[in-house]
Amino acid sequence: MNIDAYDFRDINPDERILMGPGPSNVPSRILQAMAEPCIGHLDPYFFSMMNEVQQLLRHLFQTNNPLTIPISGTGSAGMETCLVNLIEPGDEVVVCVNGVFGTRMADIVNRIGGSLIRVDAPWGKTIDPEAIQKALKGCTPKVLAVVHAETSTGVCQPLEGLADMAHNVGALFLVDTVTSLGGMDVSLDRTKIDAAYSGTQKCISCPPGLSPISFSDAAMEALGKRKTSVVSWYFDLSMVKSYWGEERRYHHTAPINMIYGFREALRIIAEEGLERRFKRHLLNHRALVAGIETMGLSMLVPESERLPMLNAVCIPDGVDDIKIRKALLNDFGIEIGGGLGELAGKIWRVGLMGHTSRRRNVVLFLSALETVLRAEHVKVEPGALDSAAAVYEEK
Amino acid sequence: MNIDAYDFRDINPDERILMGPGPSNVPSRILQAMAEPCIGHLDPYFFSMMNEVQQLLRHLFQTNNPLTIPISGTGSAGMETCLVNLIEPGDEVVVCVNGVFGTRMADIVNRIGGSLIRVDAPWGKTIDPEAIQKALKGCTPKVLAVVHAETSTGVCQPLEGLADMAHNVGALFLVDTVTSLGGMDVSLDRTKIDAAYSGTQKCISCPPGLSPISFSDAAMEALGKRKTSVVSWYFDLSMVKSYWGEERRYHHTAPINMIYGFREALRIIAEEGLERRFKRHLLNHRALVAGIETMGLSMLVPESERLPMLNAVCIPDGVDDIKIRKALLNDFGIEIGGGLGELAGKIWRVGLMGHTSRRRNVVLFLSALETVLRAEHVKVEPGALDSAAAVYEEK
Repeated sequence: MNIDAYDFRDINPDERILMGPGPSNVPSRILQAMAEPCIGHLDPYFFSMMNEVQQLLRHLFQTNNPLTIPISGTGSAGMETCLVNLIEPGDEVVVCVNGVFGTRMADIVNRIGGSLIRVDAPWGKTIDPEAIQKALKGCTPKVLAVVHAETSTGVCQPLEGLADMAHNVGALFLVDTVTSLGGMDVSLDRTKIDAAYSGTQKCISCPPGLSPISFSDAAMEALGKRKTSVVSWYFDLSMVKSYWGEERRYHHTAPINMIYGFREALRIIAEEGLERRFKRHLLNHRALVAGIETMGLSMLVPESERLPMLNAVCIPDGVDDIKIRKALLNDFGIEIGGGLGELAGKIWRVGLMGHTSRRRNVVLFLSALETVLRAEHVKVEPGALDSAAAVYEEK
Repeated sequence: MNIDAYDFRDINPDERILMGPGPSNVPSRILQAMAEPCIGHLDPYFFSMMNEVQQLLRHLFQTNNPLTIPISGTGSAGMETCLVNLIEPGDEVVVCVNGVFGTRMADIVNRIGGSLIRVDAPWGKTIDPEAIQKALKGCTPKVLAVVHAETSTGVCQPLEGLADMAHNVGALFLVDTVTSLGGMDVSLDRTKIDAAYSGTQKCISCPPGLSPISFSDAAMEALGKRKTSVVSWYFDLSMVKSYWGEERRYHHTAPINMIYGFREALRIIAEEGLERRFKRHLLNHRALVAGIETMGLSMLVPESERLPMLNAVCIPDGVDDIKIRKALLNDFGIEIGGGLGELAGKIWRVGLMGHTSRRRNVVLFLSALETVLRAEHVKVEPGALDSAAAVYEEK
C-alpha cells in the first residue's frame, strides 16, 4: 500500500472517436460545464438547476410526468430503480428478452422475488407482439417490460400497441430507452409508457454516471400502494422524489458536477430540436449502412428492424475480431464495440450516437475499416464512400 | 413539455466556500481532470487508470485488500453495496445507531430481510463498547456495523477493540468511513476492518458521485459462500469485481469522467501524504473550536469524542437557524449545514473537510459568524480570532 505519488502521471487520455455502444463523444461545452465549481446539494442555485433539468428532461422524454429525474448511477441503475420500485415479491412480470438488456431485466426481477414470465425471441430479431399478448393473458401481470433499443444486437422493438395490451390486463408498461432516448422518437405520453429509464452516455452524449427516468401517474400510484418497502434504500423513489420535489428533503448527496454536465447536454439537445436530431441520426445511419453493404459486408438485423444509432455489422468469416478492432483503435483512434454473449466474435457494434453521429465520422469509419480489412487480406468491394455520399446527396 | 432552449442560461454557479457536511471545495486540478475527453470503459488507457485508482485508494484506506474500488454512486450507494453483499435474509446484524447514518444502515438491513439488533446511544454521544459486546454475545451475528464519523452529529466513534469483539463471535466488522476517510486515520488492515465504504465529496474533496469501498479476504469469502443472489444487480460485487479484476468483464458502464476526477483527488492526497493531511485537519479543527468557544458558543460533542472535520456547534437559544445560515451564504458565500432529525434547529454543522480545511477558511468563518450574530443582536464575546491564531502559533 506504500506508493510514490510522483509515479502517477497527469491524466492524458487520447481523443478517441467513440463509435462503440456508448459512451459517445462528449461535446466540449458539456465537459466545461462539469468543470464549474462544485456547490452544495441544498444550495438555492442548485435547486433552480434541478428544476431546469426536469423541464429539459421532460421535453426530451416528451412527457408531462412530474417525476422525471436523473438517478444517481449509470443506465443499469435506472433499470434497477424502475424494477425495484414497481415490483413487490410475488408480483408477476412479463419481460421481453432478445438480447443482453432484456436478460438483465429478467435477472433483476428474479433477484427481487418477482414472478418472471419471459417472452423470448432470437437475438437480432424483434419480439412478436402476439407472443407478448399471449403471455399477458396467461397471468396477472403487474408490469410488461420491453427494451426499445437493444444495444447488444441493434434491434429496434416497435412499441405501438404494447401499452394498450399491458393496460388492458391492468399492467404497467415499462420501457428501456437507454440507447434510443435522444436519437430517435421516444414519446412517453403519446406511447402511453408508464415508466422508462435511460443512460446519459448514448444519444445524450454526456459522460456516463446518471440514468434519466420518468414515472407516469399510474406508476406513481402503484408505488404509493405498495405493501412492502422498496428493497433498495438508494433507489427508493418514495424518498428520492421528496428531494426533487418541493420539499427538497435531503436523501443522498446528488452528483453535482455530473448534473451540471447533464443539464448542458439537455440544453444542447433542446437547441438542436428533437425532430432535427432524430433525422440526423437516421441519415448518418443510412449512409453508414450503404457504405457497409457496398463493401460486401452484411448487417445482422433486417432493414425494417434496425436502430439508427447502433449498427450491428456481421464479421466476415475468418476475420479476426480483436485484431481489426485493435487496428481501428490504435491506427485511427476509433473505438467500436464487439459482440456480447452469444454474438461475441460474430458482430461489430458501430455506434452513431448523439455528438458522434456526424458525416465526418461515417466517412472516416468506412475508410478506416476498408483499410484495416484490406491489410488483413479481406476482399472488400470498392465504392463504399460513393454509396455513403449518395445517401447524403438524396436527402 | 414544450420549451424554448434559449430560456436556459449558461451555467454560472457562485464560488461557494463549502463548510457544510459535504461536498467540500474541489481543487481546480480535479475539475480540470474531469473535463478531459471521455473515453470508453473498455479502453486500454482507462484500464490502466483503473489500476492506478486502485493503488491510490489502497494507500488511502491503508489496506492491501484486492477489492478496493469506487462504486458508481454516491456515499449511500457504498453503504447499500456493503450491506446487500454481506447480508442474506435472516442473517443477524448488529448495527450501532447514534445518528442519521447508523439509522440509515438499520433501515437497509430491514429492507433486505436481515435480522436487526440495534445498539443505540444518544445522538451526539459515542456508543459504549460494552453495549456492543453484550449485543454481539446475545445473538449469532454475521456483521457488526459501526459509523466511524457520524456526519449528523460530529461524533467520532473509537474503533479500537471492536474488530476483535466481532471476530471473536464470527462476525465481520463493517465501518462507515464516509466522512473520516482522507481527514483522519482510517487504517483498514491495522484496525482489522472487513468492509468499509466512503464518499468522495468529504475529505477527499472530489465532487460527489462515487463511493470508495474495500472488502477484506474474509468479507470476500463470505460473499463467495452466499446461498442466495445479492438482491441488487447494480451493486453485486461478485460481478463488479470481474470488471475491476483481470477479467475486465463488462458489468455496467463506469462513470468515466468522475473516475478521472477521483484519480486526481487521490493523487493530490498522496502528494500531501496521509500524516500531514490528518495533522492539517486536526489543527484547523482545533483553531475553529478555540474561536467558537471564545465567542461564548458551545460544541455539541465532548472534546475527546469530536471529529476533526465536522464541527457541531450548538445554536444559542433564541437564534434563528435559517436566518443565520442564509446570511452566511448570501453575504459571505459560506455554506454550513443545519442539524438533521432530532438535532434540526439545534446545531450548525461546520465542515473543515479536505481542501476546505484551511486557515483562511477558519478565520473567514469565525469573522463572518461573529458579524451575522451581532447583526441579530446576539451577544458574542470578543477574541475569537486571537484564540484561533494562538492555536496556529503553538503548533
